[in-house]
Amino acid sequence: MTIQVFGHKSPDTDSTGAPIVWAWYLSEIKGTPAAPKLLGEPNTEAAFVLAHWGLDKPEIISGVAADAPVVIVDTNNPAELPEGINDADIQAIIDHHKLVGGLETKGPIDIRIEPLACTATIMYKMIGDDLAQAPKAIKGAMLSCIISDTLEFRSPTTTQEDRAIAEALAKDLGVEIGDLAEKMFAAKSDVSAFSDAELLRMDSKEYGVGDTKFRVSVLETTAPKTVLDRKDSLMTSMQEVAKEDGVDQVLLFVVDILNEESTLLVPNELVKNVAAKSFDAEAAGDTLVLPGVVSRKKQIIPNLKV
Amino acid sequence: MTIQVFGHKSPDTDSTGAPIVWAWYLSEIKGTPAAPKLLGEPNTEAAFVLAHWGLDKPEIISGVAADAPVVIVDTNNPAELPEGINDADIQAIIDHHKLVGGLETKGPIDIRIEPLACTATIMYKMIGDDLAQAPKAIKGAMLSCIISDTLEFRSPTTTQEDRAIAEALAKDLGVEIGDLAEKMFAAKSDVSAFSDAELLRMDSKEYGVGDTKFRVSVLETTAPKTVLDRKDSLMTSMQEVAKEDGVDQVLLFVVDILNEESTLLVPNELVKNVAAKSFDAEAAGDTLVLPGVVSRKKQIIPNLKV
Repeated sequence: MTIQVFGHKSPDTDSTGAPIVWAWYLSEIKGTPAAPKLLGEPNTEAAFVLAHWGLDKPEIISGVAADAPVVIVDTNNPAELPEGINDADIQAIIDHHKLVGGLETKGPIDIRIEPLACTATIMYKMIGDDLAQAPKAIKGAMLSCIISDTLEFRSPTTTQEDRAIAEALAKDLGVEIGDLAEKMFAAKSDVSAFSDAELLRMDSKEYGVGDTKFRVSVLETTAPKTVLDRKDSLMTSMQEVAKEDGVDQVLLFVVDILNEESTLLVPNELVKNVAAKSFDAEAAGDTLVLPGVVSRKKQIIPNLKV
Repeated sequence: MTIQVFGHKSPDTDSTGAPIVWAWYLSEIKGTPAAPKLLGEPNTEAAFVLAHWGLDKPEIISGVAADAPVVIVDTNNPAELPEGINDADIQAIIDHHKLVGGLETKGPIDIRIEPLACTATIMYKMIGDDLAQAPKAIKGAMLSCIISDTLEFRSPTTTQEDRAIAEALAKDLGVEIGDLAEKMFAAKSDVSAFSDAELLRMDSKEYGVGDTKFRVSVLETTAPKTVLDRKDSLMTSMQEVAKEDGVDQVLLFVVDILNEESTLLVPNELVKNVAAKSFDAEAAGDTLVLPGVVSRKKQIIPNLKV
């Protein structure tokens, strides 16, 4: 039975590329039939990466059957995975996020979680010398994953290993990291095709502080103005999205990749207070610039207070 | 701050030896001060292994402070760890059991779980070439862990990797695996000093089937008669232990290591029915021999039905 390999429900470059890499490794090196899958439409950067390296877009699936063999990458959070995931035959988990608890397996399996910026970095280490057999597109996908998750090494989640491995891949492929990053970030910044609600849910994680449930959304872009021009309708949409998703408040951080800062939308007193307590910053109007803040994992979530 | 490295609350050889191995690796190779700890008194085999290799018995601790740096080995089950474990600063988890869910970390950490028989086998792979710097006692502890968890390669949990690594360690140390195993199993079989309740809790895991909660206990021994001679008082003690520990029934499997079979004590109709449904075996009296059954993980837990 073919193993389905997938990441989380909001496929960015890592959650699109890492399943492709691992399915290649299982099928071609380990001799275990495997296929990459997606749990949603890839974002514009991931779609660019697929086209750029000539990779087919994996099939989008909405669920998994009980006892179906699966490998989970780039998340260990049941909320980001299909309902009934614990009834599947989870064969391995490869991830770089904190352990949230909730996934259960029927027997001992391979689990590898490391505090690196990117799932593809961990896979590079696991694949080892066998990577020499990988086609250019697989190596290219790995490089793109690392560029994406590290924001071209700007994110504080970047480790020496992420950087060294990206540089080794780029050298092997004869690719200029700066050129590829520029194209990827331009693709990510083209948000014209998305509705406000889609933007608010595109790269978003639910996170509770005490009794308050947040949807913490980030939009990484080289063109923050394009997003901020839509701030009034985005703030209106926040209320509907929060209601539909059963959270108290959507927080939207527009991450300016090149200038390494975020702009938080401040639609009400609740968010104003959160900004004051979490980032020691006073919002004068309905936006608040947070210099240096680019990582939800390292800089936003750990500081969030109500 | 010194990192505390510990396994589960019923320290067998792996849960005693693996913390010693990893604390050595962190302290001596990685330059990160670390100390092995125990969450209970080591069993007789583990105590023999400490004495045999000239290792100090690690300090027994009853809890961990909030934010104390810890590494968890040989379990990922909060029920087998100190209360409030999620408030500690969990820095890594190295284990070979199924993911049960429940442990949570504050950030991304190193987690390595593999479907091997023994934690020490995983550590051998992680330590790699640095093991050349290990003193004989550290290598000896690793070898003993593998012999213990594989029942000298008799358990169906044994993988090719466990066996190959044990054989490499034995060769390096100039040790006959058979000799060491015989001494270890003799130590494990000496249960004269333990009360019935202690025996029932010595190597025990809670496991629910539907609404029925079991304490599934195994006693691995080369002298099953010594235990079975005490079966009447063990069966009486089961009721008290079950009540005290909040489970419905204690199941005791006396594992005959050398003959590769188990004897299940059958104190009542409930256990008789469990035996019939789980192992397709009819108990005529108050004991039931299960040929070939030696592994709780592979053969008992997955088959348990009510």
